[in-house]
Amino acid sequence: MWIQTEVTRQLNIKYPIIQAPMAGSTTPELVAAVSNGGGLGSIGAGYYNPEKLRTDIAKTQTLTDKPFAVNLFVPEYNEVTSTQIHRMKEILTPYYEEFNIEPDMPTIDKDDTFGQLVQIVIDTNVKICSFTFGIPNPVTVEKLKEAGVTLIGCATTVEEAVLNEQAGMDMVVAQGFEAGGHRGSFAQKTLQSTIGTMALVPQAADAVAIPVIAAGGIMDGRGVYASLTLGAGAAQLGTAFLTTKESMAPEIHKEKILNSTETDTVLTKSFSGKYARGIRNRFIDDMEHHQEDILAYPFQNQITKKIRSKAAAEGRNDLLHLWSGQGVKMSRDTEAKELLKDIVDQVNKISGNENYHK
Amino acid sequence: MWIQTEVTRQLNIKYPIIQAPMAGSTTPELVAAVSNGGGLGSIGAGYYNPEKLRTDIAKTQTLTDKPFAVNLFVPEYNEVTSTQIHRMKEILTPYYEEFNIEPDMPTIDKDDTFGQLVQIVIDTNVKICSFTFGIPNPVTVEKLKEAGVTLIGCATTVEEAVLNEQAGMDMVVAQGFEAGGHRGSFAQKTLQSTIGTMALVPQAADAVAIPVIAAGGIMDGRGVYASLTLGAGAAQLGTAFLTTKESMAPEIHKEKILNSTETDTVLTKSFSGKYARGIRNRFIDDMEHHQEDILAYPFQNQITKKIRSKAAAEGRNDLLHLWSGQGVKMSRDTEAKELLKDIVDQVNKISGNENYHK
Repeated sequence: MWIQTEVTRQLNIKYPIIQAPMAGSTTPELVAAVSNGGGLGSIGAGYYNPEKLRTDIAKTQTLTDKPFAVNLFVPEYNEVTSTQIHRMKEILTPYYEEFNIEPDMPTIDKDDTFGQLVQIVIDTNVKICSFTFGIPNPVTVEKLKEAGVTLIGCATTVEEAVLNEQAGMDMVVAQGFEAGGHRGSFAQKTLQSTIGTMALVPQAADAVAIPVIAAGGIMDGRGVYASLTLGAGAAQLGTAFLTTKESMAPEIHKEKILNSTETDTVLTKSFSGKYARGIRNRFIDDMEHHQEDILAYPFQNQITKKIRSKAAAEGRNDLLHLWSGQGVKMSRDTEAKELLKDIVDQVNKISGNENYHK
Repeated sequence: MWIQTEVTRQLNIKYPIIQAPMAGSTTPELVAAVSNGGGLGSIGAGYYNPEKLRTDIAKTQTLTDKPFAVNLFVPEYNEVTSTQIHRMKEILTPYYEEFNIEPDMPTIDKDDTFGQLVQIVIDTNVKICSFTFGIPNPVTVEKLKEAGVTLIGCATTVEEAVLNEQAGMDMVVAQGFEAGGHRGSFAQKTLQSTIGTMALVPQAADAVAIPVIAAGGIMDGRGVYASLTLGAGAAQLGTAFLTTKESMAPEIHKEKILNSTETDTVLTKSFSGKYARGIRNRFIDDMEHHQEDILAYPFQNQITKKIRSKAAAEGRNDLLHLWSGQGVKMSRDTEAKELLKDIVDQVNKISGNENYHK
């Protein structure tokens, strides 16, 4: 008999274990492996166009009949001047030259891609949709709810958790300081909004009535069970699943995580214009001197994209965004199915065993 | 039947709950209340002179026959020039003037105060000694061990935990990013050594054979039980005990914690020359502009001391070091005995109840 929580009941999953929607690294195989194993897989569709999302959902649906989630980035409207763009282009010139490429110029999304992606979620009968970087507008929330979609928001502070609840989210991820990749901050974007998972989860759980999902530094059964103890209804793991066979993170990215230590990651805005945690490398160090010139998200993300793609293709981890949480020493080179099974076994060992605590 | 761990057995305490040694805020009453309640009280003697330590130990021993710990700061030898001192004195002049006081000039401890404090621990038959800011030299370690004293080190990274084990510490506190007050960092003092408790504890537990004590963001029974789940043998709570009646933190400090939110704390070197977490106030903000001029520890601590004492005396929380962890919203205005009892009750509820996880 396994631990049932509001999250497992509402999402209709067996285990309160969610594979974090790592934009750019998830595959239908990864998502399906986690969902088939009794957890919740998530398609990281933050950067997808409509066609790619349709393809991934269709493929995932052929691989599993279990629930899975689609994660979308809530668009935001930041300003950027052409002077700023040209300044950043100048700063990045050495990297373009190193790879002999021309930079992509930042563009504004005029197609309401987000709206199209939301419609695809509804049309394809996906029943769980999670959001990062903010809360969708009330019309979108209403539309998704009418279609019977369960909505999961993301918060990095108690205030953001409350805002998610007020906006009608059914659950909220409390993303701690330890988490790899982008911070989901939207109301409080400074580094003062970096709250460790141990402190964030219980304070968020005390402040909202909707279930809280713990994220940040959770890598195994110990972290999952600790999350439930802190008041979460489930735990969400990113880095742990990033190194699995089914993840499409570049091999150099996986290798780097598997061989890193907990002090190797830093929070940086240099790749995307938003704070994200990754393993420190040459690009991060170089850009330390240009922090004033970093473009607002998503423009910085767009202008560095080609460099990162090329770096991935050529096996160059010095110029790639090596997103990773702080739990790296617990990372494993394995299959998602096996990882999930081991986590479940470990939780069983902890929760059912009075002598677990040595 | 309560959870027994290597820590409770070795320290001969009932509950795996330790009151953190908050230098400047502990009293014999606080220490004795925690030890009498079945946890481990700690005298925060980091800034004590021999007389003060003798007095506190004697008083504590009249209040409890249970084990308690004394915490000492391992001295370190940093350089400072008189030019640097005069520059900082100049920067601090407005505050001296505001209080109409003369600054204390930094001094070097030529009396081996640390050695004297260690001798007092031995002479007074205190059986547990914990250390912050490093590891004592091998002669001191040997001497304490021969006297039957159990030694507890402090680590903020896995490497520091391993160094503690190699040096013969019997246990090690793994202090996460969330923790209030000074970071115990000694091998890795940069902000890259800020690892969240959720990620630090299991990685430290995997790396050393000695018991790990979790610290950072732990405020109640949820945090205590989560710590044990992560692989710790006990949990150490500072901020939770700082606001109790028995703590001698100034009332303005307690009030500020009781009325703060989790995003109100920052890591700052401005008060002492070492990174410490406290609630952001005018002094921290003012000193943001002078980070290059902050003196190394302990000189910055000495040169700001009179300002802070005066601020405390006059009820001015804008110029006081308001040390606090990130779990502030869980802080309570209560007695230490009651706080401890409630934590124990909450752990009982969690560990004995299959339906705890809603």
